Amino acid sequence: MKKQDNHASTLRDNVRIRPLEPHDRSPIEDMVVSSGMFNDVEIATALELVEEALEEGEESGYIFAILETGNANKVRGYACYGPVPLTQGVYDLYWIVVDPASQGTGLGRALIQYVEQDVLSRGGRMILVETSSQEKYGATVRFYERCGYHLEARVRGFYRIGDDKLVFQKELY
Amino acid sequence: MKKQDNHASTLRDNVRIRPLEPHDRSPIEDMVVSSGMFNDVEIATALELVEEALEEGEESGYIFAILETGNANKVRGYACYGPVPLTQGVYDLYWIVVDPASQGTGLGRALIQYVEQDVLSRGGRMILVETSSQEKYGATVRFYERCGYHLEARVRGFYRIGDDKLVFQKELY
Repeated sequence: MKKQDNHASTLRDNVRIRPLEPHDRSPIEDMVVSSGMFNDVEIATALELVEEALEEGEESGYIFAILETGNANKVRGYACYGPVPLTQGVYDLYWIVVDPASQGTGLGRALIQYVEQDVLSRGGRMILVETSSQEKYGATVRFYERCGYHLEARVRGFYRIGDDKLVFQKELY
Repeated sequence: MKKQDNHASTLRDNVRIRPLEPHDRSPIEDMVVSSGMFNDVEIATALELVEEALEEGEESGYIFAILETGNANKVRGYACYGPVPLTQGVYDLYWIVVDPASQGTGLGRALIQYVEQDVLSRGGRMILVETSSQEKYGATVRFYERCGYHLEARVRGFYRIGDDKLVFQKELY
């Protein structure tokens, strides 16, 4: 445990979070693929959002936060979020992904805390994040719960028959 | 009652539902504005979807159904719907609007039944439609319920504090 804590602490001390840049395309694709959590259509969707954000900036509706660590500035994770149209102060967290080799070291929490602070600074009051009821997303659900999100809504059979959409919510203060 | 029934029946006999055409821009704007249900941002959003559908067709993700009646082919209502990305067979009904002067004559039901048949023919299995918990949408909620939709999910404070998002659902067979 001590060793792991030291490792996490070391990583946290070297964490930088910054906006999206063109050279992030490749590490983002690597992380999304190697996570093993997303099918081909979902991977293509993730990469489309990267392209839209690179082309249009925040006009795209998508804000990216890229997390990198160490002296080599290796990309270890990213989040993609944006304001929900027709709402006052609600933001969707569309994607949050951490390199599988770096999971369990606090990077996901660092990313989501960065997103929450940024949403607050933009006048946001609530973050919603959707996930699937499939068992393979159990760790994801527990991650959101540890970060203060609660299950606000469920749409049964949304992704496919037997695979519900879960909507987690956190109010920001 | 008899007179109203005759009127509705007459309208139904003359109902035609067809795809979007460029000259529908103006009657759609008139209906959305005169309904009194939508604010400026929502009206602008409705018209943006019209433009996207006129430019890109169904590649836009938006399918329109235009309802017209009578010998003059007057546009009396429209629906806008489309497949929900990353789902198998789920469609969102984004907009359904009937000219206020023609409400209560069965046109809304004719439109939604057309949408359901079209979604079925495209391999869809479920329709979702979102609305607000505001009192002014009470008639809308009762309309969905009469058409076989049930309240599947609620996100509290979604549109603004005190104004929930209601998600109605119908499974198609």
